[in-house]
Amino acid sequence: MFESAELGHKLEKEVWDRELPTLREALLDAQFDLAAAKFPVVILVAGVDGAGKSETVNTLNEWLDPRHIQTHGLDVPSDEERERPHMWRYWRMLPPKGKIGIFDGSWYTWPILERTSGRIKTSELDQDMGRVARFEQMLIQEGALVLKFWMHLSKDAQKKRLKLLEKDPKTRWRVTPRDWKHFELYDSFRQVSERALRATSTAASPWIVVEASDWRYQRLTVGKILLEKLRARLDNPAPPPPPPPPALQPVASLDEMNVLRALNLTRTLEKKDYEEELLTLQGRLNLLTRHKNFKKHSVVLVFEGVDAAGKGGGIRRITQALDARTYHIQPVAAPTEEERAQPYLWRFWRHLPRRGKVMIYDRSWYGRVLVERVEGFCAEADWQRAYSEINDFEDQIVRSQTLLLKFWLSISQEEQLRRFQERQVTPFKRFKITDEDWRNREKWPQYERAICDMIDRTSTEIAPWTLVESEDKRYGRLKILRTLVQRLEDEL
Amino acid sequence: MFESAELGHKLEKEVWDRELPTLREALLDAQFDLAAAKFPVVILVAGVDGAGKSETVNTLNEWLDPRHIQTHGLDVPSDEERERPHMWRYWRMLPPKGKIGIFDGSWYTWPILERTSGRIKTSELDQDMGRVARFEQMLIQEGALVLKFWMHLSKDAQKKRLKLLEKDPKTRWRVTPRDWKHFELYDSFRQVSERALRATSTAASPWIVVEASDWRYQRLTVGKILLEKLRARLDNPAPPPPPPPPALQPVASLDEMNVLRALNLTRTLEKKDYEEELLTLQGRLNLLTRHKNFKKHSVVLVFEGVDAAGKGGGIRRITQALDARTYHIQPVAAPTEEERAQPYLWRFWRHLPRRGKVMIYDRSWYGRVLVERVEGFCAEADWQRAYSEINDFEDQIVRSQTLLLKFWLSISQEEQLRRFQERQVTPFKRFKITDEDWRNREKWPQYERAICDMIDRTSTEIAPWTLVESEDKRYGRLKILRTLVQRLEDEL
Repeated sequence: MFESAELGHKLEKEVWDRELPTLREALLDAQFDLAAAKFPVVILVAGVDGAGKSETVNTLNEWLDPRHIQTHGLDVPSDEERERPHMWRYWRMLPPKGKIGIFDGSWYTWPILERTSGRIKTSELDQDMGRVARFEQMLIQEGALVLKFWMHLSKDAQKKRLKLLEKDPKTRWRVTPRDWKHFELYDSFRQVSERALRATSTAASPWIVVEASDWRYQRLTVGKILLEKLRARLDNPAPPPPPPPPALQPVASLDEMNVLRALNLTRTLEKKDYEEELLTLQGRLNLLTRHKNFKKHSVVLVFEGVDAAGKGGGIRRITQALDARTYHIQPVAAPTEEERAQPYLWRFWRHLPRRGKVMIYDRSWYGRVLVERVEGFCAEADWQRAYSEINDFEDQIVRSQTLLLKFWLSISQEEQLRRFQERQVTPFKRFKITDEDWRNREKWPQYERAICDMIDRTSTEIAPWTLVESEDKRYGRLKILRTLVQRLEDEL
Repeated sequence: MFESAELGHKLEKEVWDRELPTLREALLDAQFDLAAAKFPVVILVAGVDGAGKSETVNTLNEWLDPRHIQTHGLDVPSDEERERPHMWRYWRMLPPKGKIGIFDGSWYTWPILERTSGRIKTSELDQDMGRVARFEQMLIQEGALVLKFWMHLSKDAQKKRLKLLEKDPKTRWRVTPRDWKHFELYDSFRQVSERALRATSTAASPWIVVEASDWRYQRLTVGKILLEKLRARLDNPAPPPPPPPPALQPVASLDEMNVLRALNLTRTLEKKDYEEELLTLQGRLNLLTRHKNFKKHSVVLVFEGVDAAGKGGGIRRITQALDARTYHIQPVAAPTEEERAQPYLWRFWRHLPRRGKVMIYDRSWYGRVLVERVEGFCAEADWQRAYSEINDFEDQIVRSQTLLLKFWLSISQEEQLRRFQERQVTPFKRFKITDEDWRNREKWPQYERAICDMIDRTSTEIAPWTLVESEDKRYGRLKILRTLVQRLEDEL
């Protein structure tokens, strides 16, 4: 894959001087059009040591309008970043629509170095690259233009480059013992990189390998390709959304039975028993959050349920037992302007908690396959792909020492009606009921199907759904608390 | 993921009796329409032991028109199959367009069992599932409808089922000690299966989990879903091809240099030196094919090059040294009718050699990214995705003890003209030159770009291209022979 980048490509100074002004002007024009076109551009600059990665990034910064680019040099992760899933740092760096994000170092850096140094196996590298490929596919399906540049030097050229840098007092600081150590691993690094590039070169986002032995050739090539790809995307009308895949499982199972209907909603609890157990459980929960191992984990709680199912009440019974510095409740409503300029999972990624913290999502990323599906807020192809994107997201949460619990609060249609009516006549509850609630209620069968599909496709060994019979509020609340306490006790 | 399939779904006999005739008639109608619609249907029936997989397959066989279905029960691989890449057996079973292929056991069986028994690691399972996902994606992009049924029984239900079968003298034979051994692994099997299903449930081909505790419910559910999906695809006009991704690398590199132009075509060889080395190399080659380890490998040789580059001559210098039972030459021209009814790689898969055999492809699967690209015989999206499909294909070849060598024979445009003219005046060479050759010649720049892209994207560590300077036929032929002999000596 590196053949074309070992030919000694070279560009004469006259060509550079002649072409540069035109290119820069065209790039600025394209950037101006991009702001209106409303899609993000993700540029990765990766490659071998000494191949002018940072210099290329600097050049792009010089050529482009700085107000519409964001550059991210990959540094040591901060404590904020270390306490979250590996990809969290990249999610927070994603450029919004209309902007260009340039990454000097990226989600490839770590897996390639780990494999080169033998700390992970080839199958683990492939596993990582599979995740990367799915992540990039998601970005592309969310509209991003993803350009991946690989700066290449042959082994000889790399050696020459390092020596040259070392000889010149002005550039000596660029060459560290670490660079020479990496040089010794050149062959292995090349082999691993090639495998990574091969696994992630797709039709929609192929790797672009650029020879780095002549800086003028390298910079002008990167600039011209960037311009070409930007213009191609800007000048063609947005591609039509991919055709929706065939519909999912049939509307209702043949015997009209499903996971929701199988729940026994007649369970109740006496007030006295409830109050006693509530206090016990809250006490245990509070103790658990002060356990020495609690600080090693994060906790994510997801609350979903139809309107008036008791999400707020359930959440309050938990937070009553927590120190206010420990938890945060994230109510999920319509996305903000900033959130709409990002992939749909972005607004949930941004709120993932640090170690020792509890994040409570009151509604969540499941909106994609519930309300957005039923109300047609997104295309069928979008919610269809969301199931596996959500599973990938939760897989990353769970692999980073985070306890993830997902509660579905279930009530009958009759009980919902009763609660709606009660809300309407109780002055301090009236704010909770809107016309929208009544409209949603009319779509009960469609929601039921969407909920069952959601549970079938996203209740996994690593992140199972807990179905909560909430017809009786007391029963439901205690089931939630008990599940949480039990899970924490198992884990700590 | 199995929640909905552990509810004890049941279907009354009256419902079954009432619905069955309608379903069967509708299925036969759909099958009739399928023959005209010209896309293949791949049905996988997988799941836990005792969940009626074979019985379901039998039922489908009973309901459908046997002339248009092909059923494949996964048995022990034959010696023919063991001597080829793992997926070869499935490629030969793929249904052609207009037909339905039913697989009782599939490409999932082996990886799931290997992981359940602990013989492979989780990362290796993920690696396998990544390959499976890419394979299925390819099938879907080639037009196939892929339906994946997972027959599920809860642990209790499976136990009950096995005991019940054992008690009845008529069905006792169905339960083997192996089934009970598998039962002990139920929890682990469930966990592994869930991981496999999660990794391969895509929007275009989600797994369909069916509860197997009641046979009427199970069979009718499978039949109805099959009908629903078939009709959905038949009644909707073929989805438009996906929009072409942005164009690849720019036409020419900035300095007009590329891998072809970098070749030194002035190398020549004296006739006497040539004849001497030719005989030596042919002798070594013949000895190598009689080496005791030769029988443990297969050899695949790929010859590509512009018209009149000397492919035939190069091939003959190899076969002269081989026993006729050892090798086969596969000239690749327009696909046959049977081949056109399959994914484009099918006609190359079918000819992969057994151990101890040499298969020589005179032109190859690279036609997809050369002639088909340049002449517009396939959509841009199709040849764009071909690079990674080809890399996956070659990865499988190489992992199955097969030596794969790919030769690109390069000549200059002037030399081609000289050879064309010579062919036209030499009576016994005249058959080699057609109007098409002259037409192709006019597209030299487009071909040059396609060739460079091909080398950049498919010359990999595991399957590198050997670029052969063939301006001087003698020099080229010896380079080919030398490369082959060297490679065999390294390997045996």
